[in-house]
Amino acid sequence: MPEGSVNPSFSVSTGPLPASRKVHVPGKLNPDLRVAMREIDLEPSAKEPPVRVYDPSGPYTDASVEIDIRVGLPPLRDAWIRARGDVEEVAARPVKPEDNGLKIGEESPVAAFDRAGRQPLKAKAGKSPTQLAYARAGIITPEMEYIAIRENLGREAAAKAPHGGESFGASIPKYVTPEFVRDEIARGRAIIPANINHPETEPMIIGRNFLVKINANIGNSAVTSSVAEEVDKLVWSTRWGADTVMDLSTGRNIHTIREWIIRNSPVPIGTVPIYQALEKVNGKAEDLTWEIYRDTLIEQCEQGVDYFTIHAGVRLAYIPMTAKRVTGIVSRGGSIMAKWCLAHHTESFLYTRFEEICEIMRAYDVSFSLGDGLRPGSAADANDEAQFSELETLGELTQIAWKHDVQVMIEGPGHVPMHKIKENMDKQLEVCHEAPFYTLGPLTTDIAPGYDHITSGIGAAMIGWFGTAMLCYVTPKEHLGLPDRDDVKVGVVTYKIAAHAADLAKGMPGAQERDDALSRARFEFRWRDQFNLSLDPETAEKFHDQTLPADGAKLAHFCSMCGPKFCSMKISQEVRDYANAGLADKADEFRKLGSQLYKVVEGRASVTEL
Amino acid sequence: MPEGSVNPSFSVSTGPLPASRKVHVPGKLNPDLRVAMREIDLEPSAKEPPVRVYDPSGPYTDASVEIDIRVGLPPLRDAWIRARGDVEEVAARPVKPEDNGLKIGEESPVAAFDRAGRQPLKAKAGKSPTQLAYARAGIITPEMEYIAIRENLGREAAAKAPHGGESFGASIPKYVTPEFVRDEIARGRAIIPANINHPETEPMIIGRNFLVKINANIGNSAVTSSVAEEVDKLVWSTRWGADTVMDLSTGRNIHTIREWIIRNSPVPIGTVPIYQALEKVNGKAEDLTWEIYRDTLIEQCEQGVDYFTIHAGVRLAYIPMTAKRVTGIVSRGGSIMAKWCLAHHTESFLYTRFEEICEIMRAYDVSFSLGDGLRPGSAADANDEAQFSELETLGELTQIAWKHDVQVMIEGPGHVPMHKIKENMDKQLEVCHEAPFYTLGPLTTDIAPGYDHITSGIGAAMIGWFGTAMLCYVTPKEHLGLPDRDDVKVGVVTYKIAAHAADLAKGMPGAQERDDALSRARFEFRWRDQFNLSLDPETAEKFHDQTLPADGAKLAHFCSMCGPKFCSMKISQEVRDYANAGLADKADEFRKLGSQLYKVVEGRASVTEL
Repeated sequence: MPEGSVNPSFSVSTGPLPASRKVHVPGKLNPDLRVAMREIDLEPSAKEPPVRVYDPSGPYTDASVEIDIRVGLPPLRDAWIRARGDVEEVAARPVKPEDNGLKIGEESPVAAFDRAGRQPLKAKAGKSPTQLAYARAGIITPEMEYIAIRENLGREAAAKAPHGGESFGASIPKYVTPEFVRDEIARGRAIIPANINHPETEPMIIGRNFLVKINANIGNSAVTSSVAEEVDKLVWSTRWGADTVMDLSTGRNIHTIREWIIRNSPVPIGTVPIYQALEKVNGKAEDLTWEIYRDTLIEQCEQGVDYFTIHAGVRLAYIPMTAKRVTGIVSRGGSIMAKWCLAHHTESFLYTRFEEICEIMRAYDVSFSLGDGLRPGSAADANDEAQFSELETLGELTQIAWKHDVQVMIEGPGHVPMHKIKENMDKQLEVCHEAPFYTLGPLTTDIAPGYDHITSGIGAAMIGWFGTAMLCYVTPKEHLGLPDRDDVKVGVVTYKIAAHAADLAKGMPGAQERDDALSRARFEFRWRDQFNLSLDPETAEKFHDQTLPADGAKLAHFCSMCGPKFCSMKISQEVRDYANAGLADKADEFRKLGSQLYKVVEGRASVTEL
Repeated sequence: MPEGSVNPSFSVSTGPLPASRKVHVPGKLNPDLRVAMREIDLEPSAKEPPVRVYDPSGPYTDASVEIDIRVGLPPLRDAWIRARGDVEEVAARPVKPEDNGLKIGEESPVAAFDRAGRQPLKAKAGKSPTQLAYARAGIITPEMEYIAIRENLGREAAAKAPHGGESFGASIPKYVTPEFVRDEIARGRAIIPANINHPETEPMIIGRNFLVKINANIGNSAVTSSVAEEVDKLVWSTRWGADTVMDLSTGRNIHTIREWIIRNSPVPIGTVPIYQALEKVNGKAEDLTWEIYRDTLIEQCEQGVDYFTIHAGVRLAYIPMTAKRVTGIVSRGGSIMAKWCLAHHTESFLYTRFEEICEIMRAYDVSFSLGDGLRPGSAADANDEAQFSELETLGELTQIAWKHDVQVMIEGPGHVPMHKIKENMDKQLEVCHEAPFYTLGPLTTDIAPGYDHITSGIGAAMIGWFGTAMLCYVTPKEHLGLPDRDDVKVGVVTYKIAAHAADLAKGMPGAQERDDALSRARFEFRWRDQFNLSLDPETAEKFHDQTLPADGAKLAHFCSMCGPKFCSMKISQEVRDYANAGLADKADEFRKLGSQLYKVVEGRASVTEL
């Protein structure tokens, strides 16, 4: 690290969640695969096996791994990538002062991540090292097998689907095979965001026929936040369940921040390259050029960004459609490109140079997240002409990207009242050829700033059920300020709720297992198991302790809501004991239970006949 | 107040919310009506009239009213009730020690509310002083006119409905007339919970063709909480929007607590009388008798409880259906009655004495909230045979209650994954003859204790959209402990979001006005208006200040999310200015705007042609 620059003081949360262990399931096609998942141990009285859950938190929650932020995570996929023989090391594009918003000669205030001489990889001439190209060629990559095992939670056979799920025409398999993963990728119905320069990722998939995923946004702005805070938010958000993380930094040092984030991220990282390009022209949208943008793409491809939000659907003709909206254009990238289009009175370079962008992204297997620059920013603007016109263009661009073997997902709104959500999803499926949908919320009302994780969590659960593959979280600070650590956690947990509620409603096999395990724990007053099986064990235990702090209360067969006399669970267990005994015709044994239930026993035969 | 008993030290939140005033709209049929609502003033730069919102907070938020908890609220409806000539004062049932869980001779630890000699009212022999009886007789009561004005927010004509609402077969009028209110009550599709002994209520309606309402539960338990805390929670919950409040107290002093609550409540109060009856038999369900229950009903009718949860649908034959459930019976009242039924091997007295219960409730105009004693307590148990069997029985009981001129609503679950919510609503409409549905949540997954306001807010928004008339809140403490003041607020705000999202989706006329006003404020950077128009102005402002605390930041034309360079709203306003100018063909004026937009102006004509 250069003398004089500040050594970031990192502090991230490591170690397993309560009663949890990291387990690794081996592959079959690739026996050396070690697919990471989490097992939650239950109390011995449960007489139940540990509950396995999907776990995007990477090595940070593995008690056996020593974390060193300065070294970064181990390059899990490196050997797989190199073994395919279609990539080569290239000389890295030199980091320029403007990459970090610095003047020429100005020293960065934060230390660069030490790449230890590692050079970026790039496709060999004429090669397409993308998961889409492999899938089309019939190749099942280690990434695909990893994902199949991960989605199944390592089960050997199909799990039970929740009763009566409704998938709205999705093609959810009873059991995810590596071949199914390959087929979905080949069809473009799912993507594996996996830049060849981000070998640290644990492979994951985004698609309607897989578990619903969630994204957390982090990033500094010109106004606030620092490098160490953003790395902490990355680790923190995956700890609570973020499946991908977008680095939306817009201030200074964004190249450096991004490098620290990617090298330490077990999940795919997305960015919006136009943000950095705009910094390079000092924030004047009309000064943006294709050359600056192109250079920024290459810079980020080499660093290892896994997907790019690109607002190529903001066409000149659509901009006047936003003039009469209540909230105009609310996408940052969308408004930047709209301004550029008006200033130059021409189509944006994102649209006119789209095939060149595809060629760049193919060389590193960076996936498109085609941005919804014209998404509605209020209930009043939902599902309007501007929004749907852009969506149709995104559908056209999807087919161009696919022609170039580049993976694609489509971004969606925004602010949409409940009755317009299904229409939005159906339209996306129709015009974007089933490319995965990736939505922000949507927020179902505009009247609750401070609670927009909830206004949007409602919409997210619904659109996830209807077919959205990944839900971008919204924190309580949305519209008001930048999220802090607590906001990130609340946002992630809220979106895990939405995604899981969607999985249940879609009828995803096995989705209900955790619900059932927790409900059994609740019925049997296994308080520790209730906490440990919940999405946020710390908060559950803290809330319980606020009313009944004593350790003994965690063994109590009632809770503070009702007290012992009114405990429905307690009474209900007596009813069950009775009915079970009745059904088994164990009247004699039952009479011994004594006078409290004596009258009950008298009526046994009749009750069970009813 | 008797010497020696503790004088409760009450402290409740009074005074208007920020930038808000209480306004009163006069009646037409009854010119002396003063229908209370809230007006939120906007900043002068908005050039918009104040925004009116529905306001259940009563006189507590009226700056012109002096509150004295010891005196109680003014008896708004007293003259209307007496003028109908069908009720008379009766000698009050004497308060017994066991009403408060005291031993004979034991002094109550808290002071009784001083009724100042007021005697309870009761129907004269043969009379039915219920809103249902009046409606059927073609009488439009002052309560009905009050409600019509309140639901319209005092508008003189129909408001615009949100675009494309979907009401799933509801009969939502463009404008609510007093005659429409009467007709809905007469059909049983709506209720006005309004005990003749609770004249302090501001009339409100619960029905599918009116705004969706929310209920907040308060109440002490054997374990914790006190009188002053519960009165504070009552006032606090209505401040944030609770339309009715249920007092679920189960510990000692519940008669006294209830009296303090009712005398100070501007909203209808609901209870579950079996809780108090059980206290009177020291918590032994099998010792309950019809006589004790009947006496408890009369005690509470005389106090002024507006609706009773009565679990009369828990029939003996349904109890074995719960034996194989994951979570058995989770309703307190349901489990108490199930135990009683098994202990006595007979149908419960709530079922066998149902007509007698109707006669009692008719004499005071107490409404039924027919309890769902067999509601599911987990995703696994949703929409099962036990739940739907009970629902069918509730439908039969509804018709019996209607025969007696008693108003009825039906309670609903519980824990229901998203894909089973619509089925539940449709079944209720079918078997309960469109009597209003009143649901707890439902919770859409079981895996997030500590966040069950959110797991259930999702389900509540959906079932509200599908037709549920009132949503019972769930707080973050659900399943873990008793809610404190902060939990009550979070629960209420979450449920206001759910109810409002449902109103928008149903297409309720005028529902989107507040959203639009807030969105315009957002687009124009009127930060104060954004805070003031939100459901929780305090939290919105606090969150904003955490990132940009300076007062100047509240005038800034950007926010902390993006900073000035990336502000989409700012850029979008430039786009709009351009497009507007273009459309009006004001090219000359526009050129004067200077070089920053010069290139834009060059392209004007073409853009507006597109």
